[in-house]
Amino acid sequence: MNNKIRQNFSIKKRLKEIVEREETVAGKVFNLFIMALILLSVISLSVETLPDLDPNILRVLVIFELVVVIIFSIEYLLRIYVADRKPKYIFSFYGIIDLLAIVPFYMAAGIDLRSIRIFRLLRVFRILKFTRYSEAATRLLNVFKMIKAELLIFLLITICIVYIAAVGIYYFESPTQPEIFKSVFHSLWWAVTTITLLGYGDVYPVTIGGRIFTYLVLMVSIAMIAIPTGLIASALSKEIDLEAS
Amino acid sequence: MNNKIRQNFSIKKRLKEIVEREETVAGKVFNLFIMALILLSVISLSVETLPDLDPNILRVLVIFELVVVIIFSIEYLLRIYVADRKPKYIFSFYGIIDLLAIVPFYMAAGIDLRSIRIFRLLRVFRILKFTRYSEAATRLLNVFKMIKAELLIFLLITICIVYIAAVGIYYFESPTQPEIFKSVFHSLWWAVTTITLLGYGDVYPVTIGGRIFTYLVLMVSIAMIAIPTGLIASALSKEIDLEAS
Amino acid sequence: MNNKIRQNFSIKKRLKEIVEREETVAGKVFNLFIMALILLSVISLSVETLPDLDPNILRVLVIFELVVVIIFSIEYLLRIYVADRKPKYIFSFYGIIDLLAIVPFYMAAGIDLRSIRIFRLLRVFRILKFTRYSEAATRLLNVFKMIKAELLIFLLITICIVYIAAVGIYYFESPTQPEIFKSVFHSLWWAVTTITLLGYGDVYPVTIGGRIFTYLVLMVSIAMIAIPTGLIASALSKEIDLEAS
Amino acid sequence: MNNKIRQNFSIKKRLKEIVEREETVAGKVFNLFIMALILLSVISLSVETLPDLDPNILRVLVIFELVVVIIFSIEYLLRIYVADRKPKYIFSFYGIIDLLAIVPFYMAAGIDLRSIRIFRLLRVFRILKFTRYSEAATRLLNVFKMIKAELLIFLLITICIVYIAAVGIYYFESPTQPEIFKSVFHSLWWAVTTITLLGYGDVYPVTIGGRIFTYLVLMVSIAMIAIPTGLIASALSKEIDLEAS
Repeated sequence: MNNKIRQNFSIKKRLKEIVEREETVAGKVFNLFIMALILLSVISLSVETLPDLDPNILRVLVIFELVVVIIFSIEYLLRIYVADRKPKYIFSFYGIIDLLAIVPFYMAAGIDLRSIRIFRLLRVFRILKFTRYSEAATRLLNVFKMIKAELLIFLLITICIVYIAAVGIYYFESPTQPEIFKSVFHSLWWAVTTITLLGYGDVYPVTIGGRIFTYLVLMVSIAMIAIPTGLIASALSKEIDLEAS
Repeated sequence: MNNKIRQNFSIKKRLKEIVEREETVAGKVFNLFIMALILLSVISLSVETLPDLDPNILRVLVIFELVVVIIFSIEYLLRIYVADRKPKYIFSFYGIIDLLAIVPFYMAAGIDLRSIRIFRLLRVFRILKFTRYSEAATRLLNVFKMIKAELLIFLLITICIVYIAAVGIYYFESPTQPEIFKSVFHSLWWAVTTITLLGYGDVYPVTIGGRIFTYLVLMVSIAMIAIPTGLIASALSKEIDLEAS
Repeated sequence: MNNKIRQNFSIKKRLKEIVEREETVAGKVFNLFIMALILLSVISLSVETLPDLDPNILRVLVIFELVVVIIFSIEYLLRIYVADRKPKYIFSFYGIIDLLAIVPFYMAAGIDLRSIRIFRLLRVFRILKFTRYSEAATRLLNVFKMIKAELLIFLLITICIVYIAAVGIYYFESPTQPEIFKSVFHSLWWAVTTITLLGYGDVYPVTIGGRIFTYLVLMVSIAMIAIPTGLIASALSKEIDLEAS
Repeated sequence: MNNKIRQNFSIKKRLKEIVEREETVAGKVFNLFIMALILLSVISLSVETLPDLDPNILRVLVIFELVVVIIFSIEYLLRIYVADRKPKYIFSFYGIIDLLAIVPFYMAAGIDLRSIRIFRLLRVFRILKFTRYSEAATRLLNVFKMIKAELLIFLLITICIVYIAAVGIYYFESPTQPEIFKSVFHSLWWAVTTITLLGYGDVYPVTIGGRIFTYLVLMVSIAMIAIPTGLIASALSKEIDLEAS
């Protein structure tokens, strides 16, 4: 009995090494295999959307997905099993991503696939798993945590400015281009693509008033680009200093 | 009499707590209510601009705006009443925004609404009130105060460069595209959308000279993006250092 | 005789105070007058390019320009007269700008104006005079001096990358879009508008190879925007530190 | 015999001074000559792609290229000869560039030129040689080495986000614009041009869902621009500090 517990413990320990430790040989092989599988399943998901796809290829892709989901499900259960603090893993960022990567499949099974296709798109979260395998990502995450409050404020101000820009351009342009600047909601599209300096060119002002207003909006746009950059740059400088000391 | 003063004083103190202190329960409720009202009135303002709107909905929106303006007016008077230094509040950034959020309504009342509609758009300033409710915003404001002089110079130089770019492209492109680059004023639109790297694509040079000139302008454009970013980044680094020490 | 020298000396000193010292009342009036004149002449230059301009207005503008050039010429001679080290002023940045602001007029006089019109455009340099009147500009200039070498290298690398991008896209796109990507020179226009993230949308790749190549180019583009920004940000931080210590 | 070795040694030393030392007069002349030749050969390569080129000019360009390749080959062998540690030079960044600048010519000789034309385009690497001649470039290179890990992570995350954006827009837009958003692969083009804020305007969402999704993507885009800029800015600050101390 004592021996069995010890054996169980040893198996769990061994599994833990394979699943959680990437520095051991077994861990390396396991994690590289999972990464390859994630990549392949992501490509497979994209190929499935190709129009005029050969039904045979589609059949292969469907079977491949089945295999992938089974493997990912086992991996997910394994990760819970070997975790020291199970709830911590389940509700962690990666725990949720791991679950989201397999859940859409089970939700779609048995029911009409097409109507739930939207949820299957959540499978793209699988790709985010990549980030787990890198330590350097945490550094960048730390920086974002450091400036979370400022970024939130910035986001709020951006939304306000986008809204004001939309109202302004609606006033200037809707009399001349009533079909394009139909309402404030339609003008929001112009505001978003202009303030981010994207500039698709599908909507743009043609009146003198609208163009002068655009000039003022663009002055603010540059600040909109500059603020998050400045925030990240200064936070990174601090993070590097903290690590050095 | 003494009691009445004391009572008055106590009511004022209580109101002050509700209006100005967001950390008390009553203050929290009051401010969240105002914020919700701002958001709703902003959405209502946008819905009003929708073409082919049901007259019944429009009637509801008009009544809702009346209610909102009354509440905001009471709130504005309350804020003056509880302020320790009344002129300071009235002429502060938020005091002016609070007034601008309600004044357009009174100006429009009794007169034909449609002709004064332009002033009603000033109601969008209401949305700026959001910024009041956050402390983190002041940090960003400090940064802007720190680099005010440099930003002004930068703005001036930008205007100069935009002008020079407009004159230059006018010289190169007006012989080939006389309809688009009609005058220096028309060329300014090209200059603005190019220097900010927006690039709608409604006006662009087609001659070799104009394209080489555009290349030179774009080299300057990158600096135009880089300078405010650099200013904000360095000012933020300093602001963080000041707070730390 | 001695008195006359002393008197001359005193007149020169007085003029020096008016022309070079902006903090005295006379200096303030003089410089504000010159600034207003620069602004007016720049606007006049733009108005002249308007098509279908009333001949009477044009006549007024021509006379106004004559007056402006006379005043600027007197100002230029005055600046040389009061300068302590005359060659230093003449060959300084502002000395050259001051000369360029008036020379085109004299070169055009007597000869056919239309063919020399190009030189008259140099009059836009007049606008640059604005920068003289501000001290904060020198701070930004210092930053640019500090990173001159890096910016030059960056410019050189950018030119290389633009060229490589043009050759690459020419190879991928010229078989499919021979009219747009005619030669490497024609492809340079695409390269410039893409690498700066401008994206007019008049030329863009349509082949799969060209699009994958564009993706790689855009990865570099972001660095192209990031490097000068980073350079300016770090130089500004240093400049601020130097001033503080 | 001893004399001959000494003589050989002296010739090698002299050649080394010419080839590797740019501060001597002979070295300056040699390197400026090579630089001019690189520039000329790059221009010649571009001119060759011009359509309707005079056959005589083409013949001159082909001969010129022959001369250039011979000179560059001699230069390459010389550089190996004078290098203290030959393998180090051959496998260095510049050694590989030097080889790539001449190899395409030898590969094309004797075989049908047109099919191997793609390799000849590698000749553009010749232009990269310019960077060798500058010391300031190493500073920028140091910065990139310092943030290599972060940039790699950033690149990986960018690829993930581009993919997710493509899947998302495919879901929103393919029912409305099936010809433009044919599959996830076709949507990638939209994702790339939007996330980099390029915005050609050849593909853009038209549905409300797609536009709201674009807004979310653009919020991330700004971070995509801000992160590398912040990384470079903070690394540059550190590099400058290291050099100072």
